[in-house]
Amino acid sequence: MAANNEIGNIYPIAEAGQIAKKYNTPFLCDASQAVGKIPVNFEEWGITYLAISAHKLYAAKGSGALIVRKGHHLKPILFGGGHQKGLRSGTLNVPGIVGLGEACRLRLLEMEEDEKAITKLRDKLQSLLFEKIPGLVVNGDVNCRLVGNLHISIPDVPNSAIIARVRHSLAISTSSACSSGVETPSHVLTAMNLTPELIEGALRIGIGKFTTLEEIELASEILSSSVSSTRKALYL
Amino acid sequence: MAANNEIGNIYPIAEAGQIAKKYNTPFLCDASQAVGKIPVNFEEWGITYLAISAHKLYAAKGSGALIVRKGHHLKPILFGGGHQKGLRSGTLNVPGIVGLGEACRLRLLEMEEDEKAITKLRDKLQSLLFEKIPGLVVNGDVNCRLVGNLHISIPDVPNSAIIARVRHSLAISTSSACSSGVETPSHVLTAMNLTPELIEGALRIGIGKFTTLEEIELASEILSSSVSSTRKALYL
Repeated sequence: MAANNEIGNIYPIAEAGQIAKKYNTPFLCDASQAVGKIPVNFEEWGITYLAISAHKLYAAKGSGALIVRKGHHLKPILFGGGHQKGLRSGTLNVPGIVGLGEACRLRLLEMEEDEKAITKLRDKLQSLLFEKIPGLVVNGDVNCRLVGNLHISIPDVPNSAIIARVRHSLAISTSSACSSGVETPSHVLTAMNLTPELIEGALRIGIGKFTTLEEIELASEILSSSVSSTRKALYL
Repeated sequence: MAANNEIGNIYPIAEAGQIAKKYNTPFLCDASQAVGKIPVNFEEWGITYLAISAHKLYAAKGSGALIVRKGHHLKPILFGGGHQKGLRSGTLNVPGIVGLGEACRLRLLEMEEDEKAITKLRDKLQSLLFEKIPGLVVNGDVNCRLVGNLHISIPDVPNSAIIARVRHSLAISTSSACSSGVETPSHVLTAMNLTPELIEGALRIGIGKFTTLEEIELASEILSSSVSSTRKALYL
């Protein structure tokens, strides 16, 4: 994983690629979260297989790509009409594929500027939340993360209580979208050895190129007031 | 298969369903070609699993649905995020799914009228082709076929020669889209015991709700003149 889908941390893929190369081992990198956000270098990072996802590039949900280094081969797991040279049978999602390609082109042009703007919004949101929510913790390595991800914990407030209060006004999650609605604690936060309180109070906030300063301010208001009222309900 | 994807013939699925029921055997029906063209009755036909495809309903390529009778279960073959209750992991193609649903709604409203109009166009094209192309054969059961499919053979003219001549002006195929570009003879036509000449001269023509009478007339012109010039090149 080039960048984590929950906490947004960026991992040292080039180093991992060196290890794979040393042992002559194929190296699959899921760069869904990273491509279009940070420079990803297929060649330099020593990647054999690179997975990307359209909806993380502002394209439509439902498409993705697996980029395969020359000379490496795949075995199909879907059979039928023999599409894509037999690798993945099924009528291709033409609008999705075209959109993914166009999105890649646009990310290359817009990434640098977008990420600068998103950094400002993330910093603003983070400082507003620190200001308004006593006890707030930012999880993961804050010096090496995607700028569009803000992963926080409010140790004394269960995230389910926050979600229940804000869900009609704020799109926010407790873990990855794949696992939304799942009750078991996040395997990512568990592997990071976060305390049960930090895990239970964890919230993942996403900021994108279409997020505005007004939305950031509103989100900080909604979140902090829901934390206050939850705290009152729980501890008063 | 409720209707054949090459020759357009409609099969007696209700009878097949009776046999499956008699032996208490699950019955999978691929109704991709039939749904939205002819009435398909999941209940009466005794279907356990029904497969449909968005692009055959005038929706976007890349989506489909498998409708499963209550009490019957499936095992996943794609694993990961556990989407769709674990049955098929992967971020869902939301625009495709919404489009498929809307297309189903529209087909229900428009099918009857559309198919009447398409029948007229098909009959017109067929009579024009019979008129202009001596030796033309219509394949399959002409009394029990989808109206949007016209499957013909020109016994003394290889279909590859026709395709080569018309491909910049007419979208036409020698077999199913899944196998386009494949050199082996169609398994459908082979199973029907067509002569090698009929198989080699086979052309599949599709007519849809957006086809116009002008296009039908133009198509018959393009096809018949390409047959004439191919015959001249081959036999003079």
